[in-house]
Amino acid sequence: MDETPSRVELSPVGFLRRSAAVFPNKVAVVAGERRYRYAELAGRVNRFAAALRAQGLERGDRVAVLCPNSPALLEAHFAVPAAGGVLVAINTRLTQEEVGSILRHSGARVLVADAELRPLAAPDALAGVEVVTVDDRGGGLDSYEAFLAGAPDTDADDGLADAGPLHEDDPIAINYTSGTTGRPKGAVYTHRGAYLRALGNVLETRLDRETVYLWTLPMFHCNGWGYPWAVTAVAGRHVCLRKVDYAAVWELLEQEGVTHYCGAPTVHINVVNHPAAHRLAQPVTVPTGGAPPSPTLLAQMQRLNLHPIHLYGLTETYGPHMGCPRQPEWDALPVEEQAALGARQGVPCLPLEETRVVDAELRDVPRDGQTIGEVVARGNAVMREYFREPDLTAEAFRGGWFHTGDLGVWHPDGYVELRDRAKDIIISGGENISTIEVEQAIARHPAVLDVAVVATPDETWGERPKAYVELKPEASATAEEIIAFSRQHLAGFKRPAGVEFGELPRTSTGKIQKYLLRQRERER
Amino acid sequence: MDETPSRVELSPVGFLRRSAAVFPNKVAVVAGERRYRYAELAGRVNRFAAALRAQGLERGDRVAVLCPNSPALLEAHFAVPAAGGVLVAINTRLTQEEVGSILRHSGARVLVADAELRPLAAPDALAGVEVVTVDDRGGGLDSYEAFLAGAPDTDADDGLADAGPLHEDDPIAINYTSGTTGRPKGAVYTHRGAYLRALGNVLETRLDRETVYLWTLPMFHCNGWGYPWAVTAVAGRHVCLRKVDYAAVWELLEQEGVTHYCGAPTVHINVVNHPAAHRLAQPVTVPTGGAPPSPTLLAQMQRLNLHPIHLYGLTETYGPHMGCPRQPEWDALPVEEQAALGARQGVPCLPLEETRVVDAELRDVPRDGQTIGEVVARGNAVMREYFREPDLTAEAFRGGWFHTGDLGVWHPDGYVELRDRAKDIIISGGENISTIEVEQAIARHPAVLDVAVVATPDETWGERPKAYVELKPEASATAEEIIAFSRQHLAGFKRPAGVEFGELPRTSTGKIQKYLLRQRERER
Repeated sequence: MDETPSRVELSPVGFLRRSAAVFPNKVAVVAGERRYRYAELAGRVNRFAAALRAQGLERGDRVAVLCPNSPALLEAHFAVPAAGGVLVAINTRLTQEEVGSILRHSGARVLVADAELRPLAAPDALAGVEVVTVDDRGGGLDSYEAFLAGAPDTDADDGLADAGPLHEDDPIAINYTSGTTGRPKGAVYTHRGAYLRALGNVLETRLDRETVYLWTLPMFHCNGWGYPWAVTAVAGRHVCLRKVDYAAVWELLEQEGVTHYCGAPTVHINVVNHPAAHRLAQPVTVPTGGAPPSPTLLAQMQRLNLHPIHLYGLTETYGPHMGCPRQPEWDALPVEEQAALGARQGVPCLPLEETRVVDAELRDVPRDGQTIGEVVARGNAVMREYFREPDLTAEAFRGGWFHTGDLGVWHPDGYVELRDRAKDIIISGGENISTIEVEQAIARHPAVLDVAVVATPDETWGERPKAYVELKPEASATAEEIIAFSRQHLAGFKRPAGVEFGELPRTSTGKIQKYLLRQRERER
Repeated sequence: MDETPSRVELSPVGFLRRSAAVFPNKVAVVAGERRYRYAELAGRVNRFAAALRAQGLERGDRVAVLCPNSPALLEAHFAVPAAGGVLVAINTRLTQEEVGSILRHSGARVLVADAELRPLAAPDALAGVEVVTVDDRGGGLDSYEAFLAGAPDTDADDGLADAGPLHEDDPIAINYTSGTTGRPKGAVYTHRGAYLRALGNVLETRLDRETVYLWTLPMFHCNGWGYPWAVTAVAGRHVCLRKVDYAAVWELLEQEGVTHYCGAPTVHINVVNHPAAHRLAQPVTVPTGGAPPSPTLLAQMQRLNLHPIHLYGLTETYGPHMGCPRQPEWDALPVEEQAALGARQGVPCLPLEETRVVDAELRDVPRDGQTIGEVVARGNAVMREYFREPDLTAEAFRGGWFHTGDLGVWHPDGYVELRDRAKDIIISGGENISTIEVEQAIARHPAVLDVAVVATPDETWGERPKAYVELKPEASATAEEIIAFSRQHLAGFKRPAGVEFGELPRTSTGKIQKYLLRQRERER
């Protein structure tokens, strides 16, 4: 019996194969002065994949990448899975210690690192790891181009499918969350999930052949929420950006005719307040993660022809798993009320299928906008597992639903509103910070008895960590000392914005009442 | 071990569940004076599914529907699969004999028939078949509403998922082709294929929440190419149309703000030439099956703000499997050349994945625009099989590719151009007519020695069958007699438009040289 022609395993690698075949001459990538077409993107990806295979990469082997939003990281999103590997895109804002722990936990065989970020990978974390350095701005350290050029002869048409039999439930990527314990947790994404997430993005954020996508969202963050694959599916244009420089953002919005960019409200605040801000001729769709844009920000954006789509998600759900679509009947309501309705986290995005708010027995809470429950989810864009953590996976998947750890209420119209997002998580500039991790770092200081870290509102970053410290009897320390000390164990963005000393509020059973501290911060 | 939350079987039934949950108050269906919302559509579908299950319908049982583009047929696209059944939407233009043979071959347990079309199902074809009559224009024959009302109590939220474990590769529909032998061949579609085809439609023809879809394309034809599911996926509006009445089409284009309708060029010719034709305020996207629109037609359509997307497909590929996207560089070419490039069948549509032009050993023909080969295809929108025809399936799937039977050339730019579509098929008003079937009907006439049927160009229908008849020695018959005789065995649209008598051109081995006859017709 011949293989059936009616079932092809879903993989987003196929999007590049198709776009390169159908639109070889369309511009695929813009990065500074570089600008290249789909045929060239496919050719480079193909050589990259062949070079990985020539290294002996086997199906399921991990390839780590430590790059800004450069073409190399975009290429890796196709080349690594095309070679049969699993992409581990590392957060570029981590410390040496954190990068090392991800390299070790993932067991990466290859690391592709930008020359500037290369020092984040310490020698002891690189035992047995083949390192390829990307220096695409002429610094002379590049070995990536030679790596590609050294690939065995390949035909651009064939190579993409050349990694042996694939099952669509095979892993395509592992994305590490900061987690709540400080221990790296790797959310495993599959080819199928990535394919469906990409088509979901097309549907939810209306990508098409004219899409010009500006890379403000870090590509290491949930695989750039799937846009490396989604934009390629429609043969759109990727405009890369090494760092979010707002003058450059405005230049590119104008010059390239950008139609879409993603980001947290922090990014939007900086975009609208930049001196170069002006109304654009083209409407720009702006999928917005994390906190909802405030009514003021919303109005500012709309004046500039920027149209946010409010989304909310987690690393475990391939990025956004809820969106807040406007209902036609909202138009008739007062503006304040419209803003409140639109600021909710909302309803599941395709292809997530289902989101519920449940009690401890997994029963739906009443849809009364009052009863708090946990948000649970099912669908093809829920991670397959935590890499090499069966116990954590089983815990997160208990009862056949993914437990987001987010607490919220369910409104009569079916929209979910989070009331206390995963209690311990601070979202700063779109990145998650675990308060437990920050607490553990501070707790190592010899003068510290106990510590509680909560979010404090921040104009620029949305939130930053604030530490409440109870010192040991007779011991003393200053806020500056505590912050300096925490530097040894924490990435810069995780360091506390402030420290306050005193007795911590506790329940009768001795648990710290963090909600009181959070309240105190909010009231300031 | 709990069931994993990260894999949900793909099914387009989920699109309705989601749209009803998220947009309960959006108008889902318009049909004459009726107009109802997504919550109501889901409720009706849910009762329909419950009523089918109450009849004892089991997973995989077939439910036939013989309806125009009415709400009942749209509802059946969700209710039948939700009940675990397989939808058999029957071509309403067939004869009693043909309808009977499809009812028997599919083994349908239930027939939902429009009052007007009910007589097409002869009593002998209905042994053991439960018949539900739809008379939604107040003729008094309706039993459909009572069937729905009699359903066991159900909760609209639950019912849609209530048919026991589903595998996405299970059948969702069987679509009968006219085939080349006259014997009905049922192309089996799966839940997965239908889901992916629907998302492919969203991507290829840019459906979104504002989509208003006018039902000019018969819903029985390849499940309306998947639009019952695709329009529902984006929570768009279905505007039903019992028959393609061009005054009504223009009224609805204007009144409902239609954004999309599908059809063959025949439909478009009638649309643009209608007295009510005028430029519309909104652009309308017009996916066009069958022959490409001529440059004249294209220009006429564009003046009216109608924008065709040229597609080509087969029942076996869930409808269109190739499309002809414009390349930016075509803009610089002379108009004639642009039209020629745009009239090709093109490249595979998502989610078809792959189309090739091959020789008899399944090797690619050169991409020279000259060498003729057969078009073969693979992808998730290739039928699973011919129902109960393992030999025909194996033949069509030989070598692991679906053999379309279409002959074409491959151009250097990767676009396919059909040179001789499946030699024996005539496409009349968007419907396939097998010349062999017409020949067999005529051959039964006592005066006929041999007969060859080929396409003759037709202003209105695109093509119609033309019969070349060689009479028996001493026998005589007129064209009128032959046409009248063929009426006994053929649906009206399959009857020859003309008959010509004389000796048939043959090869030295005695095979009729049909290509000479086709050529003769074209030259007229």
